[in-house]
Amino acid sequence: MARDLSDGRGAATGESGGRAARLLADLERAGEVVTDPDVLASYSHDQAGPGMVAVGRPAALVRPRRTAEVQAAVRAAARHGVPIVPRGAGSGLSGGAAAIDGCLVICTERMTDLVELDPASLCARVQPGLINAQLGEAAAGHGLRYAPDPASFEFSTLGGNVATNAGGLCCVKYGVTRDSLLGLEVVLADGSAVRVGRRTRKGVAGYDLTALFCGSEGTLGIVTEATLRLMPEPPAPATLAASFESVGAAGAAIARISAAMAPAVLELMDRTTLAAVERMAPQGLDDEGIATLVFACSDAPGAAALAEVERMAGFCEAAGATLTVTTDEAAEGRMLMNARRQAHPALERLGATLLDDVSVPLGAIPALLEGVEAIGARSGLTIGTFGHAGDGNMHPTIVYDAADPGEVERARAAFAAIVELALELGGTVSGEHGVGSLKLPFLDDELGAARPLQRAIKRALDPAGVMNPGKAI
Amino acid sequence: MARDLSDGRGAATGESGGRAARLLADLERAGEVVTDPDVLASYSHDQAGPGMVAVGRPAALVRPRRTAEVQAAVRAAARHGVPIVPRGAGSGLSGGAAAIDGCLVICTERMTDLVELDPASLCARVQPGLINAQLGEAAAGHGLRYAPDPASFEFSTLGGNVATNAGGLCCVKYGVTRDSLLGLEVVLADGSAVRVGRRTRKGVAGYDLTALFCGSEGTLGIVTEATLRLMPEPPAPATLAASFESVGAAGAAIARISAAMAPAVLELMDRTTLAAVERMAPQGLDDEGIATLVFACSDAPGAAALAEVERMAGFCEAAGATLTVTTDEAAEGRMLMNARRQAHPALERLGATLLDDVSVPLGAIPALLEGVEAIGARSGLTIGTFGHAGDGNMHPTIVYDAADPGEVERARAAFAAIVELALELGGTVSGEHGVGSLKLPFLDDELGAARPLQRAIKRALDPAGVMNPGKAI
Repeated sequence: MARDLSDGRGAATGESGGRAARLLADLERAGEVVTDPDVLASYSHDQAGPGMVAVGRPAALVRPRRTAEVQAAVRAAARHGVPIVPRGAGSGLSGGAAAIDGCLVICTERMTDLVELDPASLCARVQPGLINAQLGEAAAGHGLRYAPDPASFEFSTLGGNVATNAGGLCCVKYGVTRDSLLGLEVVLADGSAVRVGRRTRKGVAGYDLTALFCGSEGTLGIVTEATLRLMPEPPAPATLAASFESVGAAGAAIARISAAMAPAVLELMDRTTLAAVERMAPQGLDDEGIATLVFACSDAPGAAALAEVERMAGFCEAAGATLTVTTDEAAEGRMLMNARRQAHPALERLGATLLDDVSVPLGAIPALLEGVEAIGARSGLTIGTFGHAGDGNMHPTIVYDAADPGEVERARAAFAAIVELALELGGTVSGEHGVGSLKLPFLDDELGAARPLQRAIKRALDPAGVMNPGKAI
Repeated sequence: MARDLSDGRGAATGESGGRAARLLADLERAGEVVTDPDVLASYSHDQAGPGMVAVGRPAALVRPRRTAEVQAAVRAAARHGVPIVPRGAGSGLSGGAAAIDGCLVICTERMTDLVELDPASLCARVQPGLINAQLGEAAAGHGLRYAPDPASFEFSTLGGNVATNAGGLCCVKYGVTRDSLLGLEVVLADGSAVRVGRRTRKGVAGYDLTALFCGSEGTLGIVTEATLRLMPEPPAPATLAASFESVGAAGAAIARISAAMAPAVLELMDRTTLAAVERMAPQGLDDEGIATLVFACSDAPGAAALAEVERMAGFCEAAGATLTVTTDEAAEGRMLMNARRQAHPALERLGATLLDDVSVPLGAIPALLEGVEAIGARSGLTIGTFGHAGDGNMHPTIVYDAADPGEVERARAAFAAIVELALELGGTVSGEHGVGSLKLPFLDDELGAARPLQRAIKRALDPAGVMNPGKAI
């Protein structure tokens, strides 16, 4: 599929070389154009596990600053039959921004304007290259918050967040990117720019194209502006950490908490991840008896926050927790959450990592965790699992040696086994990272008879298949 | 547009009569078939203001019980080129279920199964004819709630709620129908049935077709099953009522509350509506000085709820409220909210009502209210305004004499003026009721260049235009 629109080994050879030359001659209105091979190489991949997705050689990269430049770039590519790979910061984990041989990479990282912040209507308009945390800082100046908080919030772009419908720790209470997304400006495959959605909280005029573009990973168009909802900064949270001797007990506690209240954070980390965190930064948590740690926050107002996490602690104890700690001291709360926040960096120190992103119904969390442990044991690889327990969205992370073809192969097989397990449990192949190219082989199993419908939508908006072909659907 | 697929005056005459006969002969697998003209008449309209939308004469009505029967009905209609008008309880307010001459009405009111309630995973699967309140009762048995609470929750169907992306009082905190919708089974225009979405909280595999179908008012397919998210029953609310001498002061209070916290309810009612409520059921609220009443609830846990509504009362007083009342007594809270809940029934006692449903950015609420007052004065008609202040979603309700063509015309003109005012203020023509046929004339003004994109989606899913033609887009 990635080859549909490319024809060979990239910019340097034969017919594709001629096509590249014609494309380049046509990009003068598209902002800065880059053809330096080293720069192109650094813009040709995202953060998907090394060796896990195909990475092609782009013909060129453009870094527009304005919508009109994006339009010019799209029109030029369309005119010359060159596939387009849009990207932001390249922090994605599924290969959604992996280059295709001979493609034009359109990178929105220079479109960083905060176009408007309207505290009276609790919304902001941003260009797609603005970093998530930068909007957060601007909102904080008005006592407001932009809710979606992917782990990458300090370096991922809002355009990228929209393209993957990014989640995060807070989305268990405040929703994923789509839930904070009111409207979009999008450049379509024919180079036209359209506005969809609105700036009101509610609205049902026309089909929900905003939701359709959100999570479409650049396969339907390129986001050039987003209207985002802001919320009042919630009260300071109280925090709980609880340890369990078994996965089943932790799962029972999570179910009890989820059925009783709306935690602001409800996270989980397994023994393997805990050991990696301890190795990176010892915190005295490496009790052999710990199978699973659960972290939770409440941001109920005033004293109610501590009362809520104490109620959660009671559920944990009733489910067999070996230790619970609660606090409404901010510094102590951050310390407790720190172990969870270090999960991915700590696992990354052990080798190359292939981060999974399955999501299962809440009731299936123990079965998923037990199944992943068994897959880890069979594969002989280290698999640390952490994630957003309150959403059933887990990140089993496979550690492997990217230089060892045998380990790469075993990592692939373990990854596939985890995805298939999640599907068997009524789950999805991706909770928040996107399908990209990494999860594409599993999509038929999930979508079944709905996949032709997905393709019909793609054809309706991008009949020539120029927008990020071979990704997402 | 409504005539695209019909051809004359309905079932009784000439070519269309022949077509109707062929359709009827082909409906044997489609469940109960009805051709009694009186019954057909009662299934040919919804609750849109009398005289405000065209209502055609159906060729037949089917009331299937199973997905396969819906498929048989759709296939029969498609085969004979007969337009389909899907409907649930017919409680819609925008003419989305208005019949088209010669159409087949497919009513899902007999598909009332609660297919599954899974308290461990906090979700339910339902047939589309199940009443919103019936799911609520079943969920309550497990300490859970189905969040969306349209005013019609005691008689509207969940399928209809999905078709219009229905809102309600609680959606200021807990979201509209789309936010509680995880997945769907839909019968498409070709009679095939597909499943879209999932049963997990989060998921980004494939385009968000669930959101695309939600709010599409039966123009893309017929919902035959929905997977809905449940939430823990929130704590008992505390309640605030506050009165203001001016619309601007009420608007300022609403803005302050919205910027500071997440109320569970934030509603508004104007003087005209208040007078109507007093006339129906005197409660001693008819102080001449009252321009606007604001109602709010907090469902923070424990004592925090009362503290939150007292904080809201402080904002109201700072904005110039003439009176504030707060309570955490359940009965007293219900009494306070009662005036707001009686708004629509009270206005309906004054004559025929044409209920508007515009939504504006929060900052524009005072301008909308003042503009509606001016439109009311100019029209010489009674217009009572109430609605979901926290969402900017207002229901200016025009009272008119449906037997007086002059009044009907003036009501139409006032309605158009309100919609255009909302658009000027950066708002939308419909916050939660849907476009139906009532709002269709204003859609170009809102969607602009995105309308062809809407039509492209429609063509991709329903190339022959058989599904509810002339509605929604």
